[in-house]
Amino acid sequence: MNRFEHVRHKPPSVPESARELLVVLAPMRSSVNLSRIVRLVGCAGMTKIIQCGPGKVDREIARDAIDFVEIVQRRSLAPVLEQLKEDGYSRVGLEQTTHSVCLYDFAFEIKTALIIGAERDGLSQEELDRLDHVVEMPVYGRPLSYNVATATTMAVYEYCRQFR
Amino acid sequence: MNRFEHVRHKPPSVPESARELLVVLAPMRSSVNLSRIVRLVGCAGMTKIIQCGPGKVDREIARDAIDFVEIVQRRSLAPVLEQLKEDGYSRVGLEQTTHSVCLYDFAFEIKTALIIGAERDGLSQEELDRLDHVVEMPVYGRPLSYNVATATTMAVYEYCRQFR
Repeated sequence: MNRFEHVRHKPPSVPESARELLVVLAPMRSSVNLSRIVRLVGCAGMTKIIQCGPGKVDREIARDAIDFVEIVQRRSLAPVLEQLKEDGYSRVGLEQTTHSVCLYDFAFEIKTALIIGAERDGLSQEELDRLDHVVEMPVYGRPLSYNVATATTMAVYEYCRQFR
Repeated sequence: MNRFEHVRHKPPSVPESARELLVVLAPMRSSVNLSRIVRLVGCAGMTKIIQCGPGKVDREIARDAIDFVEIVQRRSLAPVLEQLKEDGYSRVGLEQTTHSVCLYDFAFEIKTALIIGAERDGLSQEELDRLDHVVEMPVYGRPLSYNVATATTMAVYEYCRQFR
């Protein structure tokens, strides 16, 4: 008898409480990154994402997340950040900044909006000024930064680890 | 004065000890996934990856990881798994199987080889039989599985969190 055998298409785990994590994207340059993040969001049990800018989600990459995740499009991020504050979200950016906290040491609030900057430019100062926290993940080698979808994956994983 | 200001190109963190994590890839279908994993491995401070199969790494995606990470090519995975055992690695697969342990609850050994199956087929029974552990990450929604580079990101992140 084999100890490890494939179990295909396990039914999804049911989170202990409804996911109150919301991923919010600045205008992405790459629809591949955008689509990868949509798939991640779907797998992690979120039912909505806010996407600023005109990027189009590729069904080949996002898979059925595209049918389960509502993609809310907005033109720019700053007004969204204001609204999120009114709605009671802790607004957490991913960026290397002064006063960033290492993701390993960051305790998420359950009602969190994860704010993701674009590939090259990250978040603008105007946007950073509207955040409650900024987290970063340590880089130990080269290149000196993670791909945006990779960094988002780490933050979503860490949130889900804290709120199973 | 702004609380959060960009800090570009921070020097990499120096891990407390040399990274003894080794990522080992079954033949990937997509050179995009392969190249994304190479970038991740570079960022996480590893200096070597084992790649089975003929896939080519795309410099546009892997960035300077391609200059810092030695890419060791092998034809098939099973003999590599035998060698890793002789070399004293704990061989940890990523897969949904019977007796998989949730990544949240898994304590890595420092000398770990992370064994990654290909996109569609995952690891074969012959390969699963040569693993010491299998970990999986909970899926909470749709699609029912993470992209292979996304799953690898989560496992590498978790290892680095445990061994800063």
